[in-house]
Amino acid sequence: MAGSSFGRIFRITTWGESHGPALGCVIDGCPAGVELSEADIQPFLDRRKPGNCAVATSRKESDECEILSGVFEGKTTGTPISVIIRNSDMHSGDYDELRSVFRPGHADMTYDAKYGIRDHRGGGRSSGRETAARVIAGAIASKVLAVLGISVEAYTRSIGPVEADMDEYSRSAVLANATAMPDITANAKALEYIADMKNKSDSCGGVMECMVKGVPAGIGDPVFDKLDALLAQAAMSIGAVKAVEIGDGTLVAKSLGSKNNDQFKASKGNISKKTNHAGGILGGISDSSDIIVRCSVKPTPSIARSQKTVNVSGENTEIEIKGRHDPVIVPRAVVVLESMCAITILDCLMYDMSSRMENLVRIYNN
Amino acid sequence: MAGSSFGRIFRITTWGESHGPALGCVIDGCPAGVELSEADIQPFLDRRKPGNCAVATSRKESDECEILSGVFEGKTTGTPISVIIRNSDMHSGDYDELRSVFRPGHADMTYDAKYGIRDHRGGGRSSGRETAARVIAGAIASKVLAVLGISVEAYTRSIGPVEADMDEYSRSAVLANATAMPDITANAKALEYIADMKNKSDSCGGVMECMVKGVPAGIGDPVFDKLDALLAQAAMSIGAVKAVEIGDGTLVAKSLGSKNNDQFKASKGNISKKTNHAGGILGGISDSSDIIVRCSVKPTPSIARSQKTVNVSGENTEIEIKGRHDPVIVPRAVVVLESMCAITILDCLMYDMSSRMENLVRIYNN
Amino acid sequence: MAGSSFGRIFRITTWGESHGPALGCVIDGCPAGVELSEADIQPFLDRRKPGNCAVATSRKESDECEILSGVFEGKTTGTPISVIIRNSDMHSGDYDELRSVFRPGHADMTYDAKYGIRDHRGGGRSSGRETAARVIAGAIASKVLAVLGISVEAYTRSIGPVEADMDEYSRSAVLANATAMPDITANAKALEYIADMKNKSDSCGGVMECMVKGVPAGIGDPVFDKLDALLAQAAMSIGAVKAVEIGDGTLVAKSLGSKNNDQFKASKGNISKKTNHAGGILGGISDSSDIIVRCSVKPTPSIARSQKTVNVSGENTEIEIKGRHDPVIVPRAVVVLESMCAITILDCLMYDMSSRMENLVRIYNN
Amino acid sequence: MAGSSFGRIFRITTWGESHGPALGCVIDGCPAGVELSEADIQPFLDRRKPGNCAVATSRKESDECEILSGVFEGKTTGTPISVIIRNSDMHSGDYDELRSVFRPGHADMTYDAKYGIRDHRGGGRSSGRETAARVIAGAIASKVLAVLGISVEAYTRSIGPVEADMDEYSRSAVLANATAMPDITANAKALEYIADMKNKSDSCGGVMECMVKGVPAGIGDPVFDKLDALLAQAAMSIGAVKAVEIGDGTLVAKSLGSKNNDQFKASKGNISKKTNHAGGILGGISDSSDIIVRCSVKPTPSIARSQKTVNVSGENTEIEIKGRHDPVIVPRAVVVLESMCAITILDCLMYDMSSRMENLVRIYNN
Repeated sequence: MAGSSFGRIFRITTWGESHGPALGCVIDGCPAGVELSEADIQPFLDRRKPGNCAVATSRKESDECEILSGVFEGKTTGTPISVIIRNSDMHSGDYDELRSVFRPGHADMTYDAKYGIRDHRGGGRSSGRETAARVIAGAIASKVLAVLGISVEAYTRSIGPVEADMDEYSRSAVLANATAMPDITANAKALEYIADMKNKSDSCGGVMECMVKGVPAGIGDPVFDKLDALLAQAAMSIGAVKAVEIGDGTLVAKSLGSKNNDQFKASKGNISKKTNHAGGILGGISDSSDIIVRCSVKPTPSIARSQKTVNVSGENTEIEIKGRHDPVIVPRAVVVLESMCAITILDCLMYDMSSRMENLVRIYNN
Repeated sequence: MAGSSFGRIFRITTWGESHGPALGCVIDGCPAGVELSEADIQPFLDRRKPGNCAVATSRKESDECEILSGVFEGKTTGTPISVIIRNSDMHSGDYDELRSVFRPGHADMTYDAKYGIRDHRGGGRSSGRETAARVIAGAIASKVLAVLGISVEAYTRSIGPVEADMDEYSRSAVLANATAMPDITANAKALEYIADMKNKSDSCGGVMECMVKGVPAGIGDPVFDKLDALLAQAAMSIGAVKAVEIGDGTLVAKSLGSKNNDQFKASKGNISKKTNHAGGILGGISDSSDIIVRCSVKPTPSIARSQKTVNVSGENTEIEIKGRHDPVIVPRAVVVLESMCAITILDCLMYDMSSRMENLVRIYNN
Repeated sequence: MAGSSFGRIFRITTWGESHGPALGCVIDGCPAGVELSEADIQPFLDRRKPGNCAVATSRKESDECEILSGVFEGKTTGTPISVIIRNSDMHSGDYDELRSVFRPGHADMTYDAKYGIRDHRGGGRSSGRETAARVIAGAIASKVLAVLGISVEAYTRSIGPVEADMDEYSRSAVLANATAMPDITANAKALEYIADMKNKSDSCGGVMECMVKGVPAGIGDPVFDKLDALLAQAAMSIGAVKAVEIGDGTLVAKSLGSKNNDQFKASKGNISKKTNHAGGILGGISDSSDIIVRCSVKPTPSIARSQKTVNVSGENTEIEIKGRHDPVIVPRAVVVLESMCAITILDCLMYDMSSRMENLVRIYNN
Repeated sequence: MAGSSFGRIFRITTWGESHGPALGCVIDGCPAGVELSEADIQPFLDRRKPGNCAVATSRKESDECEILSGVFEGKTTGTPISVIIRNSDMHSGDYDELRSVFRPGHADMTYDAKYGIRDHRGGGRSSGRETAARVIAGAIASKVLAVLGISVEAYTRSIGPVEADMDEYSRSAVLANATAMPDITANAKALEYIADMKNKSDSCGGVMECMVKGVPAGIGDPVFDKLDALLAQAAMSIGAVKAVEIGDGTLVAKSLGSKNNDQFKASKGNISKKTNHAGGILGGISDSSDIIVRCSVKPTPSIARSQKTVNVSGENTEIEIKGRHDPVIVPRAVVVLESMCAITILDCLMYDMSSRMENLVRIYNN
């Protein structure tokens, strides 16, 4: 199945190339009876859309989606939801050189090694544009989760050396700031830094994070399909992500058991933790604390400087990448991380319904 | 399927509790015609075995495995390979208190929330003992990979503040050192640090890394089943792992495109990279450089100090954990990481055979 | 994933309702390097198309398909192939009554029981129209199989009491005859029978069969994924199919071992069978003889007579079904059976490539 | 994964060869909180056990099973249930000839073609003995279904020309009769027929059927995972089955729409069907009527007569099969069909729990 599907019950399949006629997503297994229209999806796509500030490429992607199936009179029917986005404003000519030369940091060489043929225009299937299809599914998953009282919020933690102050966290700031940072001061500094990168024909990386609130304890499966393992796959599958951390992440390596263990407390029969170093997951199963997923994102590989590389004939050459490119990927990737987390959590919730005999009795014996 | 299976073609299913009668692994999809006996598996199990030094718990796990199917006259037949280990030297009485109290940092609470019932003895299914079954499959996968000229080697990078010097790397040191570190000096320092932790009734974490050499370019699938995404799931599914990094990992967030991009070079038609910040994977597909996977491991949650916690009735209480426990998990987890990487890489290699029409013609048209 | 996907490596996902804006198929895992265009798919869709004779509904389905991804400069790239068909000539008004009444023999009642909501227009997702999406994938699979020297041919064996004479078999007759029967005389008789059914406001069933030539011995997996087991799922998943037979099928129940066993013979080292009662499959694995799959198809449930039924409120009522309907399903279902067999066989061939160690060595060690 | 697993949530994996040290089954995804012990499984294994009458081989298979994991203090814990049976009374010497000669009607040739190596003793993995592992899982599934008020009962419909009279159906007769027929008269006649076959060194086939009562309407998924499609795979995966029918099965091909349609009726808001030609499934989804699955079973291929065949070197030869063999497979296969149906139905019930938003709300929002 070549890797274009994700999820076990809430299962999505994406398709489409950067400069092909269209791209899209099929969501199979969405529960029936959820109110849904294009208006639920468009805001997610808009957050991914470039062109509205100096941060991002000037390519105009209108990214208007159309629902082609699975929704009847405003509600999901339980059948597959097919959503499509037509591509437009494609400057395929910008990419002619890439037919024969491999861009450093990109997947041109590896696609060629794997398939022996590739759509070189804009990276084809390996383009970040592929993530628009994920965001469609993420919008739908988020809508379902909201009904269950679960919120999924991603944001930029840092860009290059500029770190956000999480004490200033506000969701509206995340949605308003061009960097998707949760505080205004850091946003301003980061924009300066990005502008500097652009001037230097260079690019930078950053960190994004997702916080999931309201997941009940008990979600996720032991051993290989641990909730954190599935979140790690989901997050690492986003193009430029090179590290995934849960809770305290890499910090645990230098911590001590006496400090890293989150002690439990009970209040009126409700069990909670005094701290949340674990990031909401114990033994691969949710513990009802906030789930925290953090990703390190590499600098945009497309830079307007001369780089050494090779061509398809195996000869040494140089390349200076043309086209319109973001000097940093993080701000537009934040909604992709949010989407992948929402999809994963919903799939795990649906999968978990049959884990106890009493749930089967509840659904079927009355 | 509740998460006890991993892999798409080379697919493993593990079963067993820490204090049940036995545990084991079924490997379905192993190619036919591979020489295999218990002697190939036992050395892997021995690396995971505790009891041979001050670093590890004094529980004696003989961990002798028996192959029950799938091998005939010394060769795999293509049918499922079932391997079993009988449990022994179980001090189940040590765990009586855990029937009603949740250990901080462990999965007792979350299993209870999920299933409403659990085998409390030694953590049951959530015990690190479950990883013995993974190691069985890892030994088999490693044997197949060796035939294809691919080596998979994991080792300890750091324990607490003690970092290994990778310039001193030697596989024999990894296998000989009680810490599984690749250099002798760091090993000695780490052992001191661990002894200190034990004296303080505390525990520590560390970092382990796996290096895979010889994977040809072109392995891994685009989008969700990227090679790094599957490795992330594989590695994060190991109990105490809280972060997974590929190549430069978290460092990319502060790097620049001009520095982080690995430029290509060609020599006699062979394409390679001048550097390997990417850790051997571009766009989710192997690029023929070494594949580097790094994991941060949390401190052992079982510590012999009083900790605040709650019981199954939702009342506040305290716990002081008895039993025999490792003050650090990393040394024994190294072979588990190695196993998970071997399984993932082999599965991807087998899956990739049908990616080009010319391969189908090669297998079926002559 | 709610059942809209099929296949393990060559994996298809279909979507779309009868009277929605469009329907389509995503094929993930198609090998790279296969020549493909809409012109390869259209003839398959045309065979399924109604309206060209008295046999079939007068609904005009132009069924023009558009490839939206996965093909570049005339060749498959290994990335998902998305193909779409816009719906047209929909008389949705014909179906207003069905909003509240369940048609006997249709899935109206069961969809309602499952989802609590349904697109009642033309059966929505349960419409035979869904099979157009399968035929898209079948055309692609057939093209790949042809390169490997494998042919897949389905045809009508009988309609009501009229049986085809297989000694008169000709592929061109199958493609030319309105009934998809392989002989002209039976075709004429069957058309008379069908016309009679139509006059009586009744409908009839029939038998269709698929013959696959050129599959090498050794394809299919033991136990649950036997080649015949997967073909049985594939064939039984076609709407009106109520029985699936392999080779002699139901006749084996009254046969004897001495007669039913196909004895082997060797000629110049080539092994073949003297007879083919088994239908080309032994122990779930192909034996290089022709693979024979046969399906019994029920009479079209939509008939223009009054039938007793109930409405969504659980009250007794009667229904006389309006709209344009085929008096027999078989002729249009033949290409669907052919498609499902082609998809299954190709998937099994791709899956089988890794069954022997020597194949891995062949692909990776030279 | 090479086909040894079945089911999506209630997922079983079987392993083991006829003459290896043991065989077994791992059941992952069984709901937690079900009372379970070996005593629940043994009666199912006993029904499959040979040696208790003239009908069956005289091989003594004690088939005592041992539960190795997943059950704690008498209840399932939600973790994988591993069950093992040690092989005994193996006359492997009986099979020496089979190392080099392919038995007609058996899978010797096809395994050799697929894997290039096989355990020839008693058919190895392709032996009917493999089904003991399915029966283990079937016993567990049946126990869960019973809690939900669902019964699964299989029986012999015919052996050779002898047909059971279904008006005489009694479950106790099925369990008591050596032929697993539901009426005593037919049982006696069939035993005579079988004895005659044995005297003639020949074997015969028959028909077995499974009836599932109590499945609510709405179970099964549209398109490829239709309930009947999954049942077809499940049933066709049983060794000697060559045809699978649902409800009226092959008879529908000669029926008329006016007769074959099951008209609906309502009584106090309950919807039922006046007839059950459909066999309890409409559009791939259960309709609350009895589900009827029928299989045609081929004559035992092992017969004590000389048959023409070939050897592994591709030379013509003859074979007379030694060893202990059933002259008819049906009586022992009945419990296998029952098991496969139980497993399929339970998996579909568990899978269906998330099909409606209101079910998610019911499980998670209160």
